[in-house]
Amino acid sequence: MNLDYIKPDEWSIIEEGFNPDHIKASESIFSLGNGAMGQRANFEEHYSGATFQGSYIAGVYYPDKTRVGWWKNGYPEYFAKVLNAPSWIGIDVLIDNERLDLNTCKNVKDFRRELNMKEGWLSRSFMTTLNNGKELKVQAKRFLSLDLDEVGAINYEITPLNGDANIVFQPYIDAGITNEDTNWDDKFWDTTKVSHQNNQAFINAKTMKTEFHTCTFMESKLFINGESIVIEPIVKTEASSIQFGYSQNVKQDETFAIHKFGGYTVDRNHKKDQLISAAKTTLKKATELGFYALLENQKTAWADIWNLADITIKGDVKAQQAIRFNIFQLNQTYLGKDSTLNIGPKGFTGEKYGGSTYWDTEAYCIPFYMATKDQKVARSLLEYRFNHLEKAIENAEKLGFKNGAALYPMVTMNGEECHNEWEITFEEIHRNGAIAFAIFNYYRFTDDFSYIQEKGLEVLIGIARFWHQRANYSVDKKQYVILGVTGPNEYENNINNNWYTNYSAKWCIEYALENIQKIESEYSTDYTRIMNKTRLSKAELKEWQDVSSNMYFPFNEEKGVYLQQDGFLDKELITVADLDQSQRPINQKWSWDRILRSPYIKQADVLQGFYFFEDHFTTEALEKHFDFYEPFTVHESSLSPCVHSIQAAKLNRMEQAYQFYLRTARLDLDDYNHEVDEGLHITSMAGTWMSIVEGFGGMRVKNNTLSFEPKIPKQWEAYSFKVNFRNQIIKVHVCQNETHFEIEGEGELNILVNNETITIAPNNLVTV
Amino acid sequence: MNLDYIKPDEWSIIEEGFNPDHIKASESIFSLGNGAMGQRANFEEHYSGATFQGSYIAGVYYPDKTRVGWWKNGYPEYFAKVLNAPSWIGIDVLIDNERLDLNTCKNVKDFRRELNMKEGWLSRSFMTTLNNGKELKVQAKRFLSLDLDEVGAINYEITPLNGDANIVFQPYIDAGITNEDTNWDDKFWDTTKVSHQNNQAFINAKTMKTEFHTCTFMESKLFINGESIVIEPIVKTEASSIQFGYSQNVKQDETFAIHKFGGYTVDRNHKKDQLISAAKTTLKKATELGFYALLENQKTAWADIWNLADITIKGDVKAQQAIRFNIFQLNQTYLGKDSTLNIGPKGFTGEKYGGSTYWDTEAYCIPFYMATKDQKVARSLLEYRFNHLEKAIENAEKLGFKNGAALYPMVTMNGEECHNEWEITFEEIHRNGAIAFAIFNYYRFTDDFSYIQEKGLEVLIGIARFWHQRANYSVDKKQYVILGVTGPNEYENNINNNWYTNYSAKWCIEYALENIQKIESEYSTDYTRIMNKTRLSKAELKEWQDVSSNMYFPFNEEKGVYLQQDGFLDKELITVADLDQSQRPINQKWSWDRILRSPYIKQADVLQGFYFFEDHFTTEALEKHFDFYEPFTVHESSLSPCVHSIQAAKLNRMEQAYQFYLRTARLDLDDYNHEVDEGLHITSMAGTWMSIVEGFGGMRVKNNTLSFEPKIPKQWEAYSFKVNFRNQIIKVHVCQNETHFEIEGEGELNILVNNETITIAPNNLVTV
Repeated sequence: MNLDYIKPDEWSIIEEGFNPDHIKASESIFSLGNGAMGQRANFEEHYSGATFQGSYIAGVYYPDKTRVGWWKNGYPEYFAKVLNAPSWIGIDVLIDNERLDLNTCKNVKDFRRELNMKEGWLSRSFMTTLNNGKELKVQAKRFLSLDLDEVGAINYEITPLNGDANIVFQPYIDAGITNEDTNWDDKFWDTTKVSHQNNQAFINAKTMKTEFHTCTFMESKLFINGESIVIEPIVKTEASSIQFGYSQNVKQDETFAIHKFGGYTVDRNHKKDQLISAAKTTLKKATELGFYALLENQKTAWADIWNLADITIKGDVKAQQAIRFNIFQLNQTYLGKDSTLNIGPKGFTGEKYGGSTYWDTEAYCIPFYMATKDQKVARSLLEYRFNHLEKAIENAEKLGFKNGAALYPMVTMNGEECHNEWEITFEEIHRNGAIAFAIFNYYRFTDDFSYIQEKGLEVLIGIARFWHQRANYSVDKKQYVILGVTGPNEYENNINNNWYTNYSAKWCIEYALENIQKIESEYSTDYTRIMNKTRLSKAELKEWQDVSSNMYFPFNEEKGVYLQQDGFLDKELITVADLDQSQRPINQKWSWDRILRSPYIKQADVLQGFYFFEDHFTTEALEKHFDFYEPFTVHESSLSPCVHSIQAAKLNRMEQAYQFYLRTARLDLDDYNHEVDEGLHITSMAGTWMSIVEGFGGMRVKNNTLSFEPKIPKQWEAYSFKVNFRNQIIKVHVCQNETHFEIEGEGELNILVNNETITIAPNNLVTV
Repeated sequence: MNLDYIKPDEWSIIEEGFNPDHIKASESIFSLGNGAMGQRANFEEHYSGATFQGSYIAGVYYPDKTRVGWWKNGYPEYFAKVLNAPSWIGIDVLIDNERLDLNTCKNVKDFRRELNMKEGWLSRSFMTTLNNGKELKVQAKRFLSLDLDEVGAINYEITPLNGDANIVFQPYIDAGITNEDTNWDDKFWDTTKVSHQNNQAFINAKTMKTEFHTCTFMESKLFINGESIVIEPIVKTEASSIQFGYSQNVKQDETFAIHKFGGYTVDRNHKKDQLISAAKTTLKKATELGFYALLENQKTAWADIWNLADITIKGDVKAQQAIRFNIFQLNQTYLGKDSTLNIGPKGFTGEKYGGSTYWDTEAYCIPFYMATKDQKVARSLLEYRFNHLEKAIENAEKLGFKNGAALYPMVTMNGEECHNEWEITFEEIHRNGAIAFAIFNYYRFTDDFSYIQEKGLEVLIGIARFWHQRANYSVDKKQYVILGVTGPNEYENNINNNWYTNYSAKWCIEYALENIQKIESEYSTDYTRIMNKTRLSKAELKEWQDVSSNMYFPFNEEKGVYLQQDGFLDKELITVADLDQSQRPINQKWSWDRILRSPYIKQADVLQGFYFFEDHFTTEALEKHFDFYEPFTVHESSLSPCVHSIQAAKLNRMEQAYQFYLRTARLDLDDYNHEVDEGLHITSMAGTWMSIVEGFGGMRVKNNTLSFEPKIPKQWEAYSFKVNFRNQIIKVHVCQNETHFEIEGEGELNILVNNETITIAPNNLVTV
């Protein structure tokens, strides 16, 4: 644990006391988002201390020219980067001509931040004495509206405490921003127009190269002690910014407030030349409602989300806070309204990592969205990959594959590869497997075959073709091998026959074959359409079959375990427990070659396969593999503890499961990885949700039936969660000695609890 | 072959006709060097077309901040770069106020360049018509003195052909230069003083960070029709340059000439504050001799070099020209006078590649210098590594090794690592083997054990310790393995049990043990000194022995060959001959992952081991391995064909040997690799020499005796070379049907010819 200043609270993230060293961390932790835009918790007023300014618009990116030390053929020339967007939250404040700046004022007292997750707002309050002697009380609250997702609102209040004061609010919008994470210090934004009308201001700016057109806008209202007043603003226009100045003489103990409404209209939703008029429409709606009504709508919207997504934990307030923080941030990042968007690993909380979409989405996020939202949301995430199929085929062609083989990129924004480290970009090809698995997982959970029939099969075919071509026949082994890959454990590079990759390749081919057969027999029109489009022949299918039936898997008879890759047992097999603790974390202490030849595992690899394909193996086999691999696992990826937590729970090792849970749940709140200042680990938050629902709750779909095997850590009194299973909402409440099941709505549902069928009906609490 | 414009000539490199597309290639090919400095063949006068300006001072480098896409622990923070030095050759020319510029004048006729390798000078002549209508004849000749190695001289002559003309020579020196190859556009030079006195000018400049102090200087003399004249110069001084203007009205058909002397004094040879006075001393010597006498000395100095180093080839003028070009460029790069210097892969002909010293020096260059120079030169190259031993130990410590284990850097300038690609920097550790092998090779050839006794053993101990620690015991194989390496074949990365690496590790340990034993029994004082210094214990030696005696080597019984690495036979084994030619060269056509999983070999790997450790294997074993591996070898490294040429010759496959020879010998002259414009491949040139002497001549040292098995390609009438063997000069002259041996000096020598002992005595031609 690196930081421990967040106050425990069931529904809020709270910081008390002003500590400049925590500013950048808190800017990440208190971030706001509404799926369409987001922002770090930067101060509204000027702050001259260390800060990391960040505002982000969903889907707006920049292709930064790739920078490497040694170029390898196949690297993408450009690299889609998360882009710092024009900022609309700024309000400079002058008090008797002194600029308010917490970094330079005489003192800061009663500083408090609260991120209210239940209602979806961020507040900040403090008292300060300026260098000119003025004492002030400041209270600010802001939110990004879920209701009108192009707009956010701020209520910023100042009360002079030791005498009258002239106060000037200078709300501004500014497109003159840069990225911290840029390869060549390119200018990312081009401001095309700065305009204003009455109390409204607009900046039209487009991104360089990608030409995303945006309009950043603001409008402000002023109040004295809650009474609306009109002040003629002084307007200051510059090349890429505009500021309004509202000056007012304020008496001691009176409160001068500004309500600032701001946000973005973008050409994903509007015509390029109508961005300003769309902004005006949005501002009209927002200001007519006003700050408080908009805030009430916000509470309602978040209540709707929580109604389905909430997990309660009784008897462990830190665990409760943490799981809600994870669920809250996931919902701030992605709400599933737009299939061109996806879940970036840092969401709207930082700009590190090019691209937004990793295999994290398919491997970790889809189960969360599937169970806590309408199933359209998960389908939308699948469609994202369908829409990128052509680019995935092009990507495979660049690497020498042909005939419609598809390799999805390691990281992407628009379907193109955004990564350039050969051992990952070209070799971590197992991502294709997760993309196929998500289709299977969606169908298993929702029973909605129409997706496979309409779109998914084409994706499965492209992926199967890739594996067919990527495997080669080893005359030596007389089986098919897959050489030169990087598995989920990125602490191995360019290895041969990574068991997880080989297994997932075999499965992908078989799953594609199974679905081709099903569509051939049940949906002949679709079959003809797809066969014509993909030019798939029976001869090719026979070749696929040959590869999948004769795939080689490294296995050690003596230990009875599949080997992570060829040669794994040649390593010096010292367990993590026996490793000198001064050497941890190895990714900071050891040179890369040493990590590579060590047995240490960054995140579940063979065990990831046992997680995905659980039904293919006995619990005894899981136990054997868990006992072999977990002791070599250093969990230096944020995605590692959740899978191990789920498996430990399955093996009835609840203490171990709980420890893994803690490590994933408070990763960012306690800054385990010493990097929360750069942004949050959004995608791994879905893994935390899985740890509870699939791990402790033991939720699965077995034989088309929802199934639970509830367990509970001894540290908790009780926990509960809800699941949307095929449009029926099931509530599961697990106590130390019993579990209660409820169902909402009209219909009954048969579920399995510890492998016994139980029927749950509305208004009827079932206790097991 | 990419280019074919060099005229065949036995002793000169000749270009005829002006082709702007050849300028950058010719700037490389016609480069000059004298071991202490060097320069590309840039024009003296201004040239506004495409050009790559380059002047270099031996041992003067800059630590450029490392730039990578993804940082890996262990990368060096800085990267010693070959540095473009201030230029001293420039002479701007004004003819009736028009600046002479071959890129803009009306025409260029009779353009001719000659690099006279016999005498060590470069000339250039042409006729041109300027835009102002003036017709001129220009003749320029220059050389870098071997005799006074701080100075070079230029004779630049102009004759107006169609009327009188005012001609202004503006010789200048300029420290305002940049590197094309820079990571962050750093300024590399800091000019500290620009001064002049009479006809002399000086620029004191130091390199940033490394603070190498240099003085660039010049002095000029003027002549009309060969008669010395005095012209008062107009001096133009700027912040980092200085120019003298000598104006003269010249009659039609009269020749106006400038003799410019210039060069560098550096603080490697002089005190920092005496660089100008040292420059004055050098200029005094040079100008007192004058251009022509200095040129005569140059011819004598080169005659001395050629006397021992020349190889003649009769009946194949292109082969003759090529081998002399290789020998000439090697001597221009390194003359063995200074053990702080080494042989950079591009010599003084370009700035690509950080650092100067690769394993090329030990694997390819030492045999050439050992046989064609005094043995002190080879010893000096060995001492270079001894002097870097401490840095090699530090380098190993950075990678987690301890207790005096030494890992020499992949590339270096001052002993520190200059490379940052993990699969090479951290994993291509076989370089350590070549450094130990060079010690063995030197002792085998010279019989000078004093080097091992005084210095070499410490290097051998550091290297043996590295291998001991780097190997690990595989419980699975019950032998020691070496995991995660890159072999000489860089088309494989992070492989396990590269046979060459394992074999060379075992050999290094055994050779170190053998020498420890010998020094223990024969040189007890040295033994005590070295044991005290290295704190080597008998217990540690026993551990070494355990590793070397139980090293694992991948072997395939069925094929009877050692495998390049574990799993090699899993690859899709399509030979190069069966590979679609449109896919070649694979390093340009294929993505890196595809290259890695292919069986294709960049340069000798297993066969490199068979070359170094030839005596350990039968000719039948060589043949079997050659027949297995060569068909998968794409020879996409300049260092590949020579080893294969030597082995093909040994196997009596003379046509194949000859084809390999051609590919190595004219690599740069014919620009096989499409990159000669970036500079020459200096170190591979030593491989060309080996192809003839060790390949065709079959030279070896067997049982302490010089041995030959002469063969000759059918395309040649005869060839000859000389060898300095333990201070006796043997001349070998091979014809189609017989070979003649001669010895210089007083003593006799027993040699082996085709394994029969023959005595050669002075003044007595022995014919076999």
